[in-house]
Amino acid sequence: MTDRIFTAGLIVIGDEILSGRTHDRNIAQVASWLQVQGIRLGEVRVVPDVTARIADAVNALRAQNDYLFTTGGIGPTHDDITVDAVAEALGVPVEVHPEARAILERHYADKGGLSEARLRMARTPQGAELIANRMSGAPGIRIGNIFMMAGVPHIAAGMLDALTGTIEGGAPLVSETLGGFIPESEVAVLLRETERAHAHCQIGSYPFFKDGRVGSNFVIRSTSVEALAQCAKALGDGLDRAGFAWVPGGIAPR
Amino acid sequence: MTDRIFTAGLIVIGDEILSGRTHDRNIAQVASWLQVQGIRLGEVRVVPDVTARIADAVNALRAQNDYLFTTGGIGPTHDDITVDAVAEALGVPVEVHPEARAILERHYADKGGLSEARLRMARTPQGAELIANRMSGAPGIRIGNIFMMAGVPHIAAGMLDALTGTIEGGAPLVSETLGGFIPESEVAVLLRETERAHAHCQIGSYPFFKDGRVGSNFVIRSTSVEALAQCAKALGDGLDRAGFAWVPGGIAPR
Repeated sequence: MTDRIFTAGLIVIGDEILSGRTHDRNIAQVASWLQVQGIRLGEVRVVPDVTARIADAVNALRAQNDYLFTTGGIGPTHDDITVDAVAEALGVPVEVHPEARAILERHYADKGGLSEARLRMARTPQGAELIANRMSGAPGIRIGNIFMMAGVPHIAAGMLDALTGTIEGGAPLVSETLGGFIPESEVAVLLRETERAHAHCQIGSYPFFKDGRVGSNFVIRSTSVEALAQCAKALGDGLDRAGFAWVPGGIAPR
Repeated sequence: MTDRIFTAGLIVIGDEILSGRTHDRNIAQVASWLQVQGIRLGEVRVVPDVTARIADAVNALRAQNDYLFTTGGIGPTHDDITVDAVAEALGVPVEVHPEARAILERHYADKGGLSEARLRMARTPQGAELIANRMSGAPGIRIGNIFMMAGVPHIAAGMLDALTGTIEGGAPLVSETLGGFIPESEVAVLLRETERAHAHCQIGSYPFFKDGRVGSNFVIRSTSVEALAQCAKALGDGLDRAGFAWVPGGIAPR
């Protein structure tokens, strides 16, 4: 563990998200998983199933971040082009990965064997390693600092689980939440000044409506447990002085 | 209605999405709403509460698309910086919008009046118009082809509703879904060839697991109702010939 801040980019690939047909669930699960690894999610891009668009996003986000994750587009059909796009971005050829082929042969042995389409899932950019898939046949793919995962959320979750603890991160971001039926506009000055007075902390303000009332959760984030505790104490005292009732942990919006 | 294809970009602003604390619900609702307007969502970026990062994304996505939507960061607190970022991207100053100020004065008349923090929600890039907020006080903001909306999903939904029919779109994308307990790897060739044979159609394949069985939904998209019907007929006939049972409308994954 170091003081350095590690960041990751995420590319969500798929026309089904952009059409509104499928509600993405990978952004939140990758974000939460990264937090635990001590890595911050720096940016997410959702891009269509177009090789050049995926490749552009890969090159932009891998340059800006320590790691890059992708979800989607590694299946057997013609619209699964993530491997081709990443290979194009890296300027390396695509090849059939012998270990991936062996995994798929075993997986499909009692399901009709390896067809041309299924063999598509053994293709990787040259030089890649595999990420274990504990849920179904086709593995995820790692090449350098790029991690290609399935789009189906529970398969992606299994791949994240397989990666847990294998990637270097920094001090994890810790957070503390104070919430109450407090209109955020009435404490905006308090929030700003409290953040300013605590250099290693950020305060986010998240309004909600519940049971016909307005409220807010104030989330303080820091990589320092001590700084976090001091900032949370200062904000709680400030809310007390202003006469607002609040609870630690915040209020569930619905 | 024209034959031209209109596209929109979407920027989701907020550390709370990148931290995994809040599950985004705006991508799907903006995507679905755009479909009905005859506009395609071309790309989404989720960026942190950092002015320069938001401004960079604004300039990238407004150059690539006919329209740009943003959600989040237009509230009263110090972390609400979307207006400043858009103004920076456009190279225009920020000013207090007289109509927005009047709306907020009325809204807060019986709630303690306009404080400095609340007045923050009347700030817009110079030259902006307002988007009606039917749910709460602060309006959304339109400047040119950029639409800034609230981050709270039901407030954003109200703003989208206010914009319905006011933005030029092309022919809406229509779709038809065929689904069954069919492993996508067994029909990959059929999907690819059917798509190739129907120039104005795209076929997406979305695998799922349900009740312990593998299945797929095949979504055909087109701007031509006739081309869509022909392609759906061809795919259905192909699945029949291959001996796969399928249902129109697809199967709900869970």
